[in-house]
Amino acid sequence: MMTATTSRQASAGVTEQVDPADDPRAFRRALGQFATGVTVVSTSDGDAHVAMAVNSFAAVSLDPPLVSWSIRNESRNRDAFVRNAHFAVSVLAEDQVETSGLFGRPHDGQFDRVAWTAGVHGDRLLDQAIAHFECTLEASHDGGDHLILIGRVTRCTRLEGTPLLFSQGQYGIAQAHPQVALTSASPSAAPAAGDGNHPLFMSLLKATEQHMSRLFDEYRERLEISAFGTRIINLLDEAPARDGELAERALLGDAAVEDTLNEFKAKGWVVESPAHIFELTDSGRILRRELLRGAEEFTAAQLKGIDPRDLEATRRVLIKLLTA
Amino acid sequence: MMTATTSRQASAGVTEQVDPADDPRAFRRALGQFATGVTVVSTSDGDAHVAMAVNSFAAVSLDPPLVSWSIRNESRNRDAFVRNAHFAVSVLAEDQVETSGLFGRPHDGQFDRVAWTAGVHGDRLLDQAIAHFECTLEASHDGGDHLILIGRVTRCTRLEGTPLLFSQGQYGIAQAHPQVALTSASPSAAPAAGDGNHPLFMSLLKATEQHMSRLFDEYRERLEISAFGTRIINLLDEAPARDGELAERALLGDAAVEDTLNEFKAKGWVVESPAHIFELTDSGRILRRELLRGAEEFTAAQLKGIDPRDLEATRRVLIKLLTA
Repeated sequence: MMTATTSRQASAGVTEQVDPADDPRAFRRALGQFATGVTVVSTSDGDAHVAMAVNSFAAVSLDPPLVSWSIRNESRNRDAFVRNAHFAVSVLAEDQVETSGLFGRPHDGQFDRVAWTAGVHGDRLLDQAIAHFECTLEASHDGGDHLILIGRVTRCTRLEGTPLLFSQGQYGIAQAHPQVALTSASPSAAPAAGDGNHPLFMSLLKATEQHMSRLFDEYRERLEISAFGTRIINLLDEAPARDGELAERALLGDAAVEDTLNEFKAKGWVVESPAHIFELTDSGRILRRELLRGAEEFTAAQLKGIDPRDLEATRRVLIKLLTA
Repeated sequence: MMTATTSRQASAGVTEQVDPADDPRAFRRALGQFATGVTVVSTSDGDAHVAMAVNSFAAVSLDPPLVSWSIRNESRNRDAFVRNAHFAVSVLAEDQVETSGLFGRPHDGQFDRVAWTAGVHGDRLLDQAIAHFECTLEASHDGGDHLILIGRVTRCTRLEGTPLLFSQGQYGIAQAHPQVALTSASPSAAPAAGDGNHPLFMSLLKATEQHMSRLFDEYRERLEISAFGTRIINLLDEAPARDGELAERALLGDAAVEDTLNEFKAKGWVVESPAHIFELTDSGRILRRELLRGAEEFTAAQLKGIDPRDLEATRRVLIKLLTA
């Protein structure tokens, strides 16, 4: 039986622990551990349309059908949502990263750049989404620096596709849990030696990729820098950039990029110009080379002992499968 | 410029569209398109502890620090959460599927089977989680058949690890978006031919696996049955089972399994015994063989034209990497 006395196991994994009233950034990072989908919520008043990307969407009730989300009190769209008293939620598909970025910040003509349909309340629904919820505003509640909006769903639509994710500050896609049979149609998830059973080849490919990714994640956890930070370093090595551009190019959240750049400035890896353009310092460039060498050494260690001809054959097969 | 006139594209992808007041199950399926993490929320009154798995968690406010979730009015735990007026949220890690199941239904001695620590309010926090939020109850709001609970976070903790996901009725894990550089430490996501640059091998492996998975998903979308349904068929082929067991073995949500079994009963693929045990009918078993053959044909088509010796070498390399 495990009890509270085993809590030392967990303490080892604690990255930061704070009173969130004292450290809102650490609180935001902790909140980022809860993965979510991404939605675009829109409202309308005649020809006036506003919309924004939101990931605080949640299911509330089946009967009556209710959903919730929250909007910053400082948002310039807040009053429109309250006044119009109806809104439409589009749940984004995995290929809608650009759409998320488009609605993530104020842009003129947002709806000129996506396919949409007007819903029952006149609110615009994104055609390429994987679900639509058309709502009337049922209630709103004080939520600190946000307003919580409760919508009564008058029509909902499920469409084909898989969801875009936002998790730990970056965009992602979902994959079936590794404990699930690897290809659902295959008789077994266990990759057997070449026995002519073709579905097993796909299971083997998936299992190996997941295993290698996990080993690489473990390797990276032992470094001082996250996958996340590595991506920022790589992008800055390509070209200096503003924080907003970096967030778009790296498919990372604004808040996460801001936090990371502040941390890197403090470590002396990055400098910010008066025009708010960030670039690597000499020690940032040295770090970049070290990270690259580390990744090469990691992979070399994994591939050690494999017959070079087998490795070349594997490359040929993978490239053929990828480009067929 | 795309406008509302392009909405025909979307209509093609509509799977179902309903008034959710008329069809709560279709509403639930549409809600399932929004991916979430999984949390365990607990409260305590002296030695009395209750806890449950929840995926309606949402961030609300940074200043003051607020979070929300909702509980069914019919839940036997509802009154305890209101009366105690404090609770703790643990965000589950990707290896905590069993923990999610353990807290997903009433079980005696739930806390005997996991490592936990008592938090500042006495509420139990799961040691292996990736974030903890310790809260006092700030407000509660009517949410139809649920009660919405708003917590003020007095302490938050971020721990190492990546999140467990619940998406489209099944457990999953997040992977970086395919548009992201494939291994962040590699100089380029573009898989080049064998040039001795080792990180590229991992990029190539990942890109190929993602490409094959996507092709297989597209192939499966053209069939009458989902990956989801296929998994249920496969499990029932192994052994007849109750719906709750199936949900646990398949790592699927209860609601999704119930919906799928009802659909399969209507199609004549599955029968339910008076003891509520489900098993495949003869036509269910025929379907299972057809699905298996389809997967074999799909893979054979992908592998066509590849030198059999290269394919054998690839199997050797993948197995070696997997089992090293």
